[in-house]
Amino acid sequence: MTAINTNPTNTNQPAKPPADSKERVSQFMKQLQDEICAGLEQADGKGKFKEDSWERAEGGGGRSRVMSEGNIFEQGGVNFSEVWGDRLPPSILKQRPEAEGHGFYATGTSMVLHPQSPYIPTVHLNYRYFEAGPVWWFGGGADLTPYYPFAEDAAHFHRTYKASCDRHHSEYYPVFKYWCDEYFYLKHRQETRGVGGLFFDYQDGTGELYKGPHLDKAAAEYSKKLGEVEHRSWEDLFNFVQDAGKSFLPAYLPIVERRKNIEYGEKQRNFQLYRRGRYVEFNLVYDRGTIFGLQTNGRTESILMSLPPLVRWQYNYQPEPNTPEAELYETFLKPQDWANWK
Amino acid sequence: MTAINTNPTNTNQPAKPPADSKERVSQFMKQLQDEICAGLEQADGKGKFKEDSWERAEGGGGRSRVMSEGNIFEQGGVNFSEVWGDRLPPSILKQRPEAEGHGFYATGTSMVLHPQSPYIPTVHLNYRYFEAGPVWWFGGGADLTPYYPFAEDAAHFHRTYKASCDRHHSEYYPVFKYWCDEYFYLKHRQETRGVGGLFFDYQDGTGELYKGPHLDKAAAEYSKKLGEVEHRSWEDLFNFVQDAGKSFLPAYLPIVERRKNIEYGEKQRNFQLYRRGRYVEFNLVYDRGTIFGLQTNGRTESILMSLPPLVRWQYNYQPEPNTPEAELYETFLKPQDWANWK
Repeated sequence: MTAINTNPTNTNQPAKPPADSKERVSQFMKQLQDEICAGLEQADGKGKFKEDSWERAEGGGGRSRVMSEGNIFEQGGVNFSEVWGDRLPPSILKQRPEAEGHGFYATGTSMVLHPQSPYIPTVHLNYRYFEAGPVWWFGGGADLTPYYPFAEDAAHFHRTYKASCDRHHSEYYPVFKYWCDEYFYLKHRQETRGVGGLFFDYQDGTGELYKGPHLDKAAAEYSKKLGEVEHRSWEDLFNFVQDAGKSFLPAYLPIVERRKNIEYGEKQRNFQLYRRGRYVEFNLVYDRGTIFGLQTNGRTESILMSLPPLVRWQYNYQPEPNTPEAELYETFLKPQDWANWK
Repeated sequence: MTAINTNPTNTNQPAKPPADSKERVSQFMKQLQDEICAGLEQADGKGKFKEDSWERAEGGGGRSRVMSEGNIFEQGGVNFSEVWGDRLPPSILKQRPEAEGHGFYATGTSMVLHPQSPYIPTVHLNYRYFEAGPVWWFGGGADLTPYYPFAEDAAHFHRTYKASCDRHHSEYYPVFKYWCDEYFYLKHRQETRGVGGLFFDYQDGTGELYKGPHLDKAAAEYSKKLGEVEHRSWEDLFNFVQDAGKSFLPAYLPIVERRKNIEYGEKQRNFQLYRRGRYVEFNLVYDRGTIFGLQTNGRTESILMSLPPLVRWQYNYQPEPNTPEAELYETFLKPQDWANWK
């Protein structure tokens, strides 16, 4: 199956969205939240999601769902939101100046899961859609953060997403995998957040796929090499986003199944709590969505749902050489070609 | 005693520092670190500070001292540093454009203590001195963050600092107390970090004392009312900084003594760990020193020494009405006139 637009022109004008674009995307985002919550409750066997519906004074609202103290998930949140207003915030307008002077609409579903066991990775997912006057775009992705890592798990996660990408465009996986490694990077630690996955933003079917920063010569070269892709329609992109969204449960649940019965002690638990500190550091120092939300009167409790339930910091911790902890740093916190792992 | 410069002119030219300014300030900052560490070890009775000396490739270095698992202090760090280089970072040059094109020198001592007991407040202190070409300035302060708060403790802390301020200028305490409430504010929570204390920056003896943002009309009015103070010399300011620095032990240790034997259970401990999350949120989202350090290749472990050893986040926590936890929010996380508490 390929969803490439048969329109051969390579123009910089984004295709027009259908008249019912907002309803269709928000419908999908709600359904994605429902499916993910149902799948996670089934996998957990004990924990149930509790829902808070909330409204936003400036327009729109959402439904936040949180699971606490499950068998598998110490804490997990899956948040749907749909908001609108008179004007996009300045940080986004800088990226999309054509939206200036227009109202905006945004909808999305995001999720972070913090498992109890240090052998089950933390995982994050986010898909979002914006419309503002003449512009629209999709963004999103998913990434995996193991504590006691298994190459097999990283490979499974990446291969599942690669398959969902490849059904739509052969360039999606390499570009969005690269972008994920670039985005989820803790500069002050010189570590990736985990083993990555997919990340994309500002996808409106025009221009280069990679619209991230050109941090260094290698990035600039790589981005240039990726070149321009064929013009893609709104339907192409929505199909891809739906496919990627639905790939989450098959990408993640087999990892949970494989690792959930591994026994662990205080040492492993302590290392997990310590490494969760990196998740906090990333989300509060670097994550655009978190910072943007906190600075623009977002619903704080929904934004900070991503933070772990229990976290440790320890001055000057260094893993012992030749331990699983050292292996995490040496192999898993650096970009790797997981889809081709053997 | 008053240290007001007898020079009656009110000029915008900062006075020239003495030839041995850097040596004298760094000598004091080291001595302050020594005195504080000695006082804290004595109060703790068990914990000892461990020192790491470090060097900075671009020039300078420091000595980080950390105490872990003391009787009183679960974790505490006291850091001295003295650094120099070719150019101040852009964020500071924006505030001090006269420093452009000049090398810089900076020295300071900073401290954060996280006590084990929820009845003993977390406390932070920082004093710093910069020189860059024609400009120099002092900055610093100290602030108190209680979990189970006592008005008596907040009043003692403020009165001690007010006394040290009043020995140098009657406007210091009201301005630097106001600035502290303004700076240590979590906008996304609409809470102060704690009961405040003192905060000041860019003090070079000229112009208004308050050089913070004018966030709202009230702040602008208040700042205007503060007016200009008499021109102060380098010696005036250094005297004040030394006095404020040395006020820390008498401001804090009596609180430790009064509260260290209060028994507490899991409930109080859990609330403390939850509230420690606010400390993390403040330091990673708002604190200029932390963000600046992380973005400019500072020594990560020394910068993040301020983060608590163990932290909880809990979705949508609300204190029960008419409890000590609710009282913290209602009274202590809002600016109050603690020095005049009765």
